[in-house]
Amino acid sequence: MNSTLKGRDYISLADYDPSSFQSLLDLAIELKEKQKKGIPHASLPGKTLAMIFQKSSTRTRVSFDAAMFHLGGLGMFLSANDLQIGRGEPIQDTARVLASYCDGILIRTFSHQEVLMLGKYADVPVINGLTDDEHPTQALADIMTAYEEFGALKGKRLAFIGDANNVAVSLMHACALTGMEIAIASPAGHHPGDKAMAEYERLKQPGSVLTILEEPKEAAEGADILYTDVWASMGQEQEVQKRMQVFRGYHVNADLLKLAKPTAIVMHCLPAHRGEEISDEVIEGSQSRVFVEAENRLHAHKAILAALL
Amino acid sequence: MNSTLKGRDYISLADYDPSSFQSLLDLAIELKEKQKKGIPHASLPGKTLAMIFQKSSTRTRVSFDAAMFHLGGLGMFLSANDLQIGRGEPIQDTARVLASYCDGILIRTFSHQEVLMLGKYADVPVINGLTDDEHPTQALADIMTAYEEFGALKGKRLAFIGDANNVAVSLMHACALTGMEIAIASPAGHHPGDKAMAEYERLKQPGSVLTILEEPKEAAEGADILYTDVWASMGQEQEVQKRMQVFRGYHVNADLLKLAKPTAIVMHCLPAHRGEEISDEVIEGSQSRVFVEAENRLHAHKAILAALL
Amino acid sequence: MNSTLKGRDYISLADYDPSSFQSLLDLAIELKEKQKKGIPHASLPGKTLAMIFQKSSTRTRVSFDAAMFHLGGLGMFLSANDLQIGRGEPIQDTARVLASYCDGILIRTFSHQEVLMLGKYADVPVINGLTDDEHPTQALADIMTAYEEFGALKGKRLAFIGDANNVAVSLMHACALTGMEIAIASPAGHHPGDKAMAEYERLKQPGSVLTILEEPKEAAEGADILYTDVWASMGQEQEVQKRMQVFRGYHVNADLLKLAKPTAIVMHCLPAHRGEEISDEVIEGSQSRVFVEAENRLHAHKAILAALL
Repeated sequence: MNSTLKGRDYISLADYDPSSFQSLLDLAIELKEKQKKGIPHASLPGKTLAMIFQKSSTRTRVSFDAAMFHLGGLGMFLSANDLQIGRGEPIQDTARVLASYCDGILIRTFSHQEVLMLGKYADVPVINGLTDDEHPTQALADIMTAYEEFGALKGKRLAFIGDANNVAVSLMHACALTGMEIAIASPAGHHPGDKAMAEYERLKQPGSVLTILEEPKEAAEGADILYTDVWASMGQEQEVQKRMQVFRGYHVNADLLKLAKPTAIVMHCLPAHRGEEISDEVIEGSQSRVFVEAENRLHAHKAILAALL
Repeated sequence: MNSTLKGRDYISLADYDPSSFQSLLDLAIELKEKQKKGIPHASLPGKTLAMIFQKSSTRTRVSFDAAMFHLGGLGMFLSANDLQIGRGEPIQDTARVLASYCDGILIRTFSHQEVLMLGKYADVPVINGLTDDEHPTQALADIMTAYEEFGALKGKRLAFIGDANNVAVSLMHACALTGMEIAIASPAGHHPGDKAMAEYERLKQPGSVLTILEEPKEAAEGADILYTDVWASMGQEQEVQKRMQVFRGYHVNADLLKLAKPTAIVMHCLPAHRGEEISDEVIEGSQSRVFVEAENRLHAHKAILAALL
Repeated sequence: MNSTLKGRDYISLADYDPSSFQSLLDLAIELKEKQKKGIPHASLPGKTLAMIFQKSSTRTRVSFDAAMFHLGGLGMFLSANDLQIGRGEPIQDTARVLASYCDGILIRTFSHQEVLMLGKYADVPVINGLTDDEHPTQALADIMTAYEEFGALKGKRLAFIGDANNVAVSLMHACALTGMEIAIASPAGHHPGDKAMAEYERLKQPGSVLTILEEPKEAAEGADILYTDVWASMGQEQEVQKRMQVFRGYHVNADLLKLAKPTAIVMHCLPAHRGEEISDEVIEGSQSRVFVEAENRLHAHKAILAALL
């Protein structure tokens, strides 16, 4: 275990380096094996994790809760409605108070800036459970799934089809750190921002190649992984109709999958809208790893918690 | 312990047989005794239960949460508002994801069909914590209360006064499985449906007799148990005024109780509306077992969890 | 440990006497030390606490949840929205049902009367986590903070600047029980009520002096502790504009702090509105104990739980 992880935040993969990321992957694989074999791994007895959710969640919330319990600790689910944050308490106060009761803080919110503030003022590890900008806990589970499938990651090609949203940005970081190629096919105006592009350049390792495209077929060509996400993320409910038009061609179906390698796998962070960004045939097909990927969030989150707290 | 229960769902008592139901009753009695004597019974260490609530709950929720904790596991309360289910995720996806994080799923929702779908796609036990059609966890606690009171259940007469709702249907199943008589007095148009009637016929044992009546007095005559429930269940808030008229005569009061056996007990699944379906005098009277029945939900739920998970 | 505390409610400090209050203070200090040194103190294994919140909460909720976990038990957060209480169940029924599942009940609500009813009908300890009238868990953490700072409490002067609300009333009780002086500076019409005044008289010990003032400077003069709270408490959102006028002069800033003793400390129960009742300079200054005070809620709540349950 990379002991330099202890006490660190997990807010952005842009703050990580290849060896610390790899050590999280290795730990996730190890903890998955221990769970499957029934080997106890309660390395956090007595520890508590505050879990603040300003957006709804199934996977992140339940998997972190179960992860803390398996590790001997306690996850405390805090809906924004039930907290004083809603009464205008500044984040720096909430940060210091929660840090005095808990050994770590997980937060899912809109503003990435808010999570950075929380990390600055809380003297316990802060974990980003999704912001409008990044989704780094998802990316760890995703790369773990690829790692289980392919072993070596270097040079493997991930094609991301759709909106270059928070999920895509964290996948860019993770592909950079692991020497993977990433090809992102998005409609004009929905490409990754300058910040994410610069971070990719800074983080990239031998094997890393980033390609920004508009045509899904070009991205899928020869890919090892086809990845997609919903066309309208949380907080974009107003734009649904418009987005349905803009992203119409950006779906992962059997035809697109044929362009990828025969050994290619399909991933999706869920929830999925069948018939929109992905066909039912593909998500339920033999190349889909979507539900393994979902399960891996539990193991990836355990690794993050065990390493940081 | 009937080992055939391990891994099964608990969605409808119509899926159970007399011996497996009896084994749950016996286990509930045993676990109650252990708790009272302070004998440890943590048979589910490390196990987690997802608890999905689309309707509000006091008893089901708190008792399952405490039950998991007493058994060494963790209950995770998931309000529908906080889940992605609200964002249109299909139940088969939620089922598979939760099953990969948890060792069981409890759900309280409107549609019985939804729970059946959950049971089909989740490869962990699914427990029905109330649907519009059935309330089988309540019925186990109810019959347990009768069992503690009377010992032998065969031939005992339960009179259900009021709406032949989800609670009544699960009591029909439970009375059939235990050879009890059940007389249901409801206004025309509120009698049990054909499905419940057919299930009673299929499940019934020696001693089982089902009588459908309109007159509460006829049902109460010679009863061992008087049972009632609110006139308007959850989800029927729009019909309250109309229902107040329809069910006006269907209340359990001291006069009705006099028609039952002198040894008769009174039950109600709570919450109760005093002055409507039950009088304050009766619910607080010496023949009331309403609060023992409520407590027994804890022990009954422990039995379900310990047997299935 | 004062064994007479076992099984008692913690609804109002007006029900306590100096020695039982002191024993809670001593236990809080002891449990804080044990936590800091990593000495196990799980004195409530298998115990559960129902935590009912009808108002939002950060500190009370998270600290009680963590406290139960550290003590080996389980806190169950129950939002009023998720409970049947919202469906009109009478408090005496909820009380008896929860008492049959749990070993204690914490409630934050509007009506103090409701908490008294809960205490009357529940045969497990009931803890007041804030009502419109009193906030006794806060007061224990506050006095604990003063006790850590000054050692002997007798004759120490606490100046409360602002609305003589629930926090102020519980501080009056606590100051009476510990022989402290308390000077409350509030605008006319916002002074403590007759009940609180009479309780102070009844509880007061050698050293206790109560002064009711309108001028903050007079209260601050020679104070050991400057204490303030928001101008508009929960449930007073409609009156915010009016209250901003009424309380305009009642803020704790550097000028006011200069009037207190040089060794004086500043406290605030949080959340704080900087620039209103307290200046940023003071809350972040070297005399502020606001975040120690917040942390102490964890230790104070552990003491309450460990002593009562």
